[in-house]
Amino acid sequence: MDLVVFHPSGKKAQADGRQTLLQMARALDIPIQTSCGGRKKCGKCRVIIEAVEGPLPLLSHYEQKSLGDLTEQGFRLACETVLTCGAQIRIPEESLIQEPVILTADTGQTIHFHLRPVVKPFYLEVPEPELEGITTDEDRLLENLKKRYGLHIRALDLQILKKLPQTLRSEKGLTAFIRNKKELLAIMPGKKERWFGVAIDIGTTTLVTYLFDLHNGKRLAVRAGLNPQVAFGDDLISRISFCQTRPDGLETLRTGLIHDLNRLITEASEEAGIDPQEILEATMVGNTAMHHFFAGLNPRYLALAPFPPVIRTSMDIPARDLELGINPAGNVHLLPLKAGFVGSDIIAGIMACRLHKTDTPTLFMDLGTNGEIVAGWKKQLICCSTAAGPAFEGGHIRWGMRASAGAIDEVRIDPDTLQVTWKTIHNEKPLGLCGSGIISALAEMIRRGIILARGHFNKALQNPRLRKGENGLEFVLVWAKETAQNRDIVLTQKDVAEVQLAKAAVFAGSVLLSEMLGDTTIKQIFLAGAFGNYVDPEDAQVLGLFPDWPSLDFKVMGNTAGQGASLGLLDSGKRKEAERIARKMEYLELASHPRFQEMFVSGLIFRSALDYKESS
Amino acid sequence: MDLVVFHPSGKKAQADGRQTLLQMARALDIPIQTSCGGRKKCGKCRVIIEAVEGPLPLLSHYEQKSLGDLTEQGFRLACETVLTCGAQIRIPEESLIQEPVILTADTGQTIHFHLRPVVKPFYLEVPEPELEGITTDEDRLLENLKKRYGLHIRALDLQILKKLPQTLRSEKGLTAFIRNKKELLAIMPGKKERWFGVAIDIGTTTLVTYLFDLHNGKRLAVRAGLNPQVAFGDDLISRISFCQTRPDGLETLRTGLIHDLNRLITEASEEAGIDPQEILEATMVGNTAMHHFFAGLNPRYLALAPFPPVIRTSMDIPARDLELGINPAGNVHLLPLKAGFVGSDIIAGIMACRLHKTDTPTLFMDLGTNGEIVAGWKKQLICCSTAAGPAFEGGHIRWGMRASAGAIDEVRIDPDTLQVTWKTIHNEKPLGLCGSGIISALAEMIRRGIILARGHFNKALQNPRLRKGENGLEFVLVWAKETAQNRDIVLTQKDVAEVQLAKAAVFAGSVLLSEMLGDTTIKQIFLAGAFGNYVDPEDAQVLGLFPDWPSLDFKVMGNTAGQGASLGLLDSGKRKEAERIARKMEYLELASHPRFQEMFVSGLIFRSALDYKESS
Repeated sequence: MDLVVFHPSGKKAQADGRQTLLQMARALDIPIQTSCGGRKKCGKCRVIIEAVEGPLPLLSHYEQKSLGDLTEQGFRLACETVLTCGAQIRIPEESLIQEPVILTADTGQTIHFHLRPVVKPFYLEVPEPELEGITTDEDRLLENLKKRYGLHIRALDLQILKKLPQTLRSEKGLTAFIRNKKELLAIMPGKKERWFGVAIDIGTTTLVTYLFDLHNGKRLAVRAGLNPQVAFGDDLISRISFCQTRPDGLETLRTGLIHDLNRLITEASEEAGIDPQEILEATMVGNTAMHHFFAGLNPRYLALAPFPPVIRTSMDIPARDLELGINPAGNVHLLPLKAGFVGSDIIAGIMACRLHKTDTPTLFMDLGTNGEIVAGWKKQLICCSTAAGPAFEGGHIRWGMRASAGAIDEVRIDPDTLQVTWKTIHNEKPLGLCGSGIISALAEMIRRGIILARGHFNKALQNPRLRKGENGLEFVLVWAKETAQNRDIVLTQKDVAEVQLAKAAVFAGSVLLSEMLGDTTIKQIFLAGAFGNYVDPEDAQVLGLFPDWPSLDFKVMGNTAGQGASLGLLDSGKRKEAERIARKMEYLELASHPRFQEMFVSGLIFRSALDYKESS
Repeated sequence: MDLVVFHPSGKKAQADGRQTLLQMARALDIPIQTSCGGRKKCGKCRVIIEAVEGPLPLLSHYEQKSLGDLTEQGFRLACETVLTCGAQIRIPEESLIQEPVILTADTGQTIHFHLRPVVKPFYLEVPEPELEGITTDEDRLLENLKKRYGLHIRALDLQILKKLPQTLRSEKGLTAFIRNKKELLAIMPGKKERWFGVAIDIGTTTLVTYLFDLHNGKRLAVRAGLNPQVAFGDDLISRISFCQTRPDGLETLRTGLIHDLNRLITEASEEAGIDPQEILEATMVGNTAMHHFFAGLNPRYLALAPFPPVIRTSMDIPARDLELGINPAGNVHLLPLKAGFVGSDIIAGIMACRLHKTDTPTLFMDLGTNGEIVAGWKKQLICCSTAAGPAFEGGHIRWGMRASAGAIDEVRIDPDTLQVTWKTIHNEKPLGLCGSGIISALAEMIRRGIILARGHFNKALQNPRLRKGENGLEFVLVWAKETAQNRDIVLTQKDVAEVQLAKAAVFAGSVLLSEMLGDTTIKQIFLAGAFGNYVDPEDAQVLGLFPDWPSLDFKVMGNTAGQGASLGLLDSGKRKEAERIARKMEYLELASHPRFQEMFVSGLIFRSALDYKESS
């Protein structure tokens, strides 16, 4: 029989001496990978001829060049090989097109990617050492990996060598977990087909870990917690100062962070029913200071102009060096940074939103404890960081609080009576205002003419809610009897000023970045992070975080930093994409822009308030 | 002026538009390195044009290919460049021929090598970060190393990044210690021109550390001590068993070894007046079991046929992973092994003796606790290991002891009266016999006919020294009243049998290896190690450790393992040489040779005793 049998699909076709193996495979719907489309350029369509019934065609010059000494193990290029006789062809997994998988963001939008984890398992049965050959254990492992999978592993790590003799002899076979097809990370006795990865998003306030099954790309568990560093200051600068005033400051911040991340990883592992030792890969994103704290790098110069990070490119660090609670041999990939105040969270966010590929000029805003803005589309990316401060998260606000039970997160004010209605998290009695509650309250007060263009309260209003407090005017949002602590919850003139300064900085950044995009106009706003999740886009517009560009679309993107970290974990190609984004993106040092001052001042005005005054 | 000035020599020559820079340099006795002799093949004669007064010749195709993007930093090839105008040329250190240096062995012979340490210092003055560029600290370091020295350093280690911000800002300049021109090991503030290395020789019984100044190749201190593992057994097999019977056995043996090595390194550093943190490179040799103990690799299978080592190739391990007391970022190079019982000590020994380059067929013997033999010359190398046991070091001998104060190390017997005279170490009262004392005593007893061909005492002798002891006949070497412990020191029939078995194994190895050399005859014996140092070659011949080849030359080589380790430390080229030796050398599994039994039995005969009987 002159049948060519393809493994592992088991599909068969007649060897007709005309079709190449690639053509035969395509006719059989076997998805062999090429990036040249079969035009003999990419060298990716590698197959292994396991058995053949007659003569094989000679190796072409191109095959010899593409395959090197892999030809000794029977590798051929499917695009070059035409068979005239029956054969058994094995198609290695890496030569098959990987189906795109879908990652569902918290917001419901879907993100397509290829499941191409950096670490993969390779099962081997290694023959006994022979009496004459005095082959070493290392030789036996490496030679078999080369023979069976065409892998050229560089020198083995000491930790692997320590385990090798027992592992080679404890069961019939062993599984080698290999990174990037060249670095052996771990060996385990027997055949292992499950292995795991964790994506880590370190926010100034919040930590999130996402646990994935790297065999099928399924998300198994998500665990979030407070960043324990908030005990050393809500904002970055306080924490950087803490590192400078105490010799063990950095180490204190680092170990606290790692300790809490390890707890989250353990909890996520328990939920998924796995052992954290089976986690062989991690990715991490965060702003530049969080990145430096995580790696134990001195953050001191991030607080001094020109704010140089220690490193900007991506890093790969063994988990044991970071004391991260996964397999100690596992690798931790830190996505690249852009600048002292534009970190890998933003790069990851751009990647998750595909900002760098969109046809529509877009403004990407991630307003957390710091405010980063990116203007861009497929042709250009420009970013800046605004000293927005923590006002948008309730920081420095009299009744501000974190987004937890009892925090008011939405406010509505009756246009006639100025009667206030509100919503709280978990419907508990009001305790204070979280970031979205503050924005919502302010927007409503602007709409109702309670706050005027320059941010002052409208003294002409006759309403018991507007009254003189200890430090000037204040507006009562909730009367004492309705609150949890039996005290009036108010918004003060100072609170308004605090938000006003923050929003002016964001406004200035929005204008200056968008100007740098050239002749295009921003048509779309991506709201990322917690701010984006909970704030009504219309409230943001009323507040004047950006100019009133005509026919704007708003998209709430969810935790884009975490989505980007997950993509980097699941798809090795996304790591290179992140590097390209970081290199391509321009950085604007906002404070040194000649028109910053002017834009900041005009950003102080609540423009929508004027509009409302005029139209009302 | 049209003078071409060469730095750092300061020598000058006229730019004549005819001579290449290489020709000019040669005329000025500036030793620019080539391996093609200037025939435009090797690309080694790199120079940097720092300033030029007129037009430069275009880059040749060959220069572009050889130099790549180094051309951007002004690099040119001296063999290609002809100048017609004045210029300043800097010749980087690596383009200069390094003068050979001489390492003096303990035995007085000299060993030539090139001082080419793997780690070298590079001094840099790094400009301040600029306000606009947001360059990272990493970029500033790597770009300047590239610009100034043409070095392409791969990603920086986390430990370096942790120190980088402070080091960049603490003094005007910094020194980067770089391994193999590509791996940055350490950075230190200011200009450092001294750095150090340590060569480590781990014997089954003895540890030796050699401290070197890597700037000038000078040996600064040597420290030796007992291997603390002797507490767990004199021989390898007892120690390997210890590892199997206790779960923490290997770790106990490893940490004890490292602890004592660290003490020796500290003592050597104190003697030389340096800080062990300035030691940035180490080499290690030892037999395969010592190698495995040092690295923490499971030695279990070294005791089971076919005795496979875990690894055979050389290894580079960061000092911190081994807990070796040098700079934690320093590299430890473990020279390659050959087999389970032929370790890097033998490879290093061959290299130090230049056995692989000699024109004379030679037998290299290193008889310590184990006995390794190599037959070879420039055309061939064959090695074997003999189960000689520790008899040659005084083990399993009634009055055997280590070579320390009070040990008899030489014996003479009057042919007529059989009166015994002896020498002891440090001239103290006799306590026992060390290895060389045993060999010396046995050789004399054979010469005087006290011991007969088959190893029996000559019962016919009428002498009070030959008497019946508890376990058969014994010969009194020292009467009680002359000893330290007031008891007769004797050599028993069992002692003779113990040496006889050991020497028969060595004899069989010598014969079978020399036969495998083909038509040549062994003309020279290299005696290595402590045995070689203290044993009289004529005694070894009388004992019959090898056949009576005609006109044999003997050379006592000293501690060749330590010499080889030192060479590997001082000259990076020697590391490749050691790899070549390991690959080139054949290995004979002695016990499985079909004629081993036969040769062993004929080796049991004290052939020289017969000769002496016959001639006397």
